[in-house]
Amino acid sequence: MTFLDKLKFNADGLIPAIIQEQSTGRVLMMAWMNRETVQRSIDLGQTVFWSRSRQKYWVKGETSGHVQMIKDIAFDCDGDTLLFQVEQTGAACHEGYKSCFFRSIREQGKTDVVTEPQLVKPDAMYGKK
Amino acid sequence: MTFLDKLKFNADGLIPAIIQEQSTGRVLMMAWMNRETVQRSIDLGQTVFWSRSRQKYWVKGETSGHVQMIKDIAFDCDGDTLLFQVEQTGAACHEGYKSCFFRSIREQGKTDVVTEPQLVKPDAMYGKK
Repeated sequence: MTFLDKLKFNADGLIPAIIQEQSTGRVLMMAWMNRETVQRSIDLGQTVFWSRSRQKYWVKGETSGHVQMIKDIAFDCDGDTLLFQVEQTGAACHEGYKSCFFRSIREQGKTDVVTEPQLVKPDAMYGKK
Repeated sequence: MTFLDKLKFNADGLIPAIIQEQSTGRVLMMAWMNRETVQRSIDLGQTVFWSRSRQKYWVKGETSGHVQMIKDIAFDCDGDTLLFQVEQTGAACHEGYKSCFFRSIREQGKTDVVTEPQLVKPDAMYGKK
């Protein structure tokens, strides 16, 4: 039984993939993969996701250059979540932060604060629209 | 606008919550919450999840004693994923491992290996059935 056969994809054929920066332990983002993009990620050595809104696959960093080189792939006890260790170039977040999780909550959920610097302006990443 | 109003729950009213051990950076598990269990987690200071299979909420560690004390709650740019920093007592995984992600793949997805020790036998956590 291969690794792929141990995975459980949801009703839409998708599985969540948590992306963690190996060198710092920072959780960068969570995105979705289907069976095909898991295999593409393995073959390419970079993360490839499935876009639910655009219904197509996308190589992370294809436009911005902010690619994720895969160092390790783990999966959980239920086989329904993936955890990738990566080397991240630049900002993982399309808003220009290293991590998409750049906001934390305060005061029992009433407010939130930005917890890390913005590395780059989104306009500079994707070209001004 | 409160933090809860910034979150996007899916069609089933759920949002994925990534749980990370604050002291080590180890990603322990991913589970689901609904609006009510996010609020319960905040109020209790411990993680409370929604069980999709049992259709009821559960306080993590209620049976095993392996609770997760919340140290920080972050949310991502799209507001559709949560990241909790916790202090984990014992094993987060129901199979007795610290992390549910105790298996990594090898040889381009053909095989997988266990990457951490089993801390406790599941029988000892929940009582022999």
